[in-house]
Amino acid sequence: MESAIPNRLQCPRSRQRRIPDDYVPPYPGFVARHAPGISHVIMAYFGIQFRQLGDGVSEACKTLVDAFALSHGPGHWDRAQWQDERGYHNVIFAAYWDEPTRYDAWLPLHGLSWARVPRPGIGTFLEVLRPHVTRYETLLGHPTAVEGIAALADGISGPIQEHGYWGAARDRIPASQYDALHSTESPTFERDGSYVRVHAQDDLCLIRSGQDWLETEGDERRMYLDTLEPILRRGMEFLRDEGLPGGCLCSRYVTVQDVHGRATEKSYGMSWWRNLASLERWAESHPTHVAIFGAATDYFQKFGENARIKLYHEVTLSRRDEQLFEYLNCHEYTGLLRAMPR
Amino acid sequence: MESAIPNRLQCPRSRQRRIPDDYVPPYPGFVARHAPGISHVIMAYFGIQFRQLGDGVSEACKTLVDAFALSHGPGHWDRAQWQDERGYHNVIFAAYWDEPTRYDAWLPLHGLSWARVPRPGIGTFLEVLRPHVTRYETLLGHPTAVEGIAALADGISGPIQEHGYWGAARDRIPASQYDALHSTESPTFERDGSYVRVHAQDDLCLIRSGQDWLETEGDERRMYLDTLEPILRRGMEFLRDEGLPGGCLCSRYVTVQDVHGRATEKSYGMSWWRNLASLERWAESHPTHVAIFGAATDYFQKFGENARIKLYHEVTLSRRDEQLFEYLNCHEYTGLLRAMPR
Repeated sequence: MESAIPNRLQCPRSRQRRIPDDYVPPYPGFVARHAPGISHVIMAYFGIQFRQLGDGVSEACKTLVDAFALSHGPGHWDRAQWQDERGYHNVIFAAYWDEPTRYDAWLPLHGLSWARVPRPGIGTFLEVLRPHVTRYETLLGHPTAVEGIAALADGISGPIQEHGYWGAARDRIPASQYDALHSTESPTFERDGSYVRVHAQDDLCLIRSGQDWLETEGDERRMYLDTLEPILRRGMEFLRDEGLPGGCLCSRYVTVQDVHGRATEKSYGMSWWRNLASLERWAESHPTHVAIFGAATDYFQKFGENARIKLYHEVTLSRRDEQLFEYLNCHEYTGLLRAMPR
Repeated sequence: MESAIPNRLQCPRSRQRRIPDDYVPPYPGFVARHAPGISHVIMAYFGIQFRQLGDGVSEACKTLVDAFALSHGPGHWDRAQWQDERGYHNVIFAAYWDEPTRYDAWLPLHGLSWARVPRPGIGTFLEVLRPHVTRYETLLGHPTAVEGIAALADGISGPIQEHGYWGAARDRIPASQYDALHSTESPTFERDGSYVRVHAQDDLCLIRSGQDWLETEGDERRMYLDTLEPILRRGMEFLRDEGLPGGCLCSRYVTVQDVHGRATEKSYGMSWWRNLASLERWAESHPTHVAIFGAATDYFQKFGENARIKLYHEVTLSRRDEQLFEYLNCHEYTGLLRAMPR
């Protein structure tokens, strides 16, 4: 068993893990391992918002996808969609780089116009984090559950120790060895017509938490679709509609699409949180997540090692100067705009 | 809002709380406050085990209760019973002192014979902790939920900050400011015929966790008795029968009795754990406790501030030299004897 924190990022601690050294997790978990030279990664979400799919949307998506394939484009990306609480359709492209110089070369040529050049009847937004490798963590339920930033990893760890208990996400983040990772600030907003740039605070927290049920069959598939997924959906809807007082600035529950925009049997929730502590509190004690955790516990009690669902997540903190949030012509419940005082 | 750790026991930390300073609990919780002069308390469990209630048992109980009323007797005690997994009936008297000198004066005269002088056909045992005030914590769901060591308190706190999250019990224990409170040792056993003295390790962990449903009515009473209590019972039975690999050395789920030995509408679980971390892991992630927590969450979601059930607990660690465990003529699944290699 190995630590989720790679050797090269381990350092003398001023803050402790929640577990004693003899802790053994109840089931295996894995993390992505980057190549030693990687210092920062980029997680860039390109969103597009519209009432009805039309030529403008398709063209914008195609232009972006074509640009991903150009020189210095992302090492990995995926596409997803959801209908939001205002009835708008949204498509979001999550693009990942592990070499900032490539992103810095690509973005001005192909990415910055995304939420700066207006498209009639269409909203666009860009949400980018550029965290240092000490400020995020991954967790894969299975070594093949490789999604998100893990797709750029050099490899996957062996079974790691820091998982299966509340607070484990924090303990997997290398900076937690010496940093409380806690901000009490709120985002500020800079508006220019239908364009809004959001300046969030240090240690704003993002979680992307996904599930892939493609390989499930029979009883397991039914239990996922009929029991677990509806409970998960209710939790995501709670966060979307009522999460703000608890520190959830925005939550989206999205269906992953293939390159042609067709739904796959993968989904993920992504949510922005005022800080990691707020996410921890919701996860461990809010009735909606207690219900999700209870249902997931039943699920894995029943199927155990035979379960074919794949689960993964990534939790990211970043400094204020490692973030970019731009919204153009989007409704006021889009992304971090939800947190705007009104 | 105040800290669970009284001002006089706060000190520079080398270990952090799990929560940030701006944490606000989702509902109120309270702790017992001792008078400033109190340094150690005594929690002494006098148990008696038998197949059938007979004169010998009644006489032993009466003698003990009479002795409680004598000079230097406990400041508070209660009586409970349960039938164990071997079919034996057990009565247990939990007696509390907050002045060790009084206990030290009382015990040799009236208490030490309890598990040293054999009674035909009857087992007796004594389980005593003498923790420093920095090594235990209380939590009361309501300021009137005063049971156990809290009955000796000088008063009850106002609403405290450290509750409503996993790990809060640890954070309420003053020694957690600087001590990992973690032992990896196991008890050792000294046998002399039908007498066994157990020497447990530093930071052996005891939880007494109780419920009082006397004042519940109508829907709430039905939900407690028909839904919550059976789930709680299953969790207690799991710990009793299968808890050992997870670090639970012994678990009893008992009904509190009045002075005449009649059942009341109070119960408590008491369990001995290899260490606090083992208790934390079971509580936050084992399916049996996930179920209890989920059911309790539903319960308080439904009844909220109108709930009339009273919940409390106390979690205690103690040094090896602050413990006394004696078993006389008891079956091999009694108390810490369960952990004896066989």
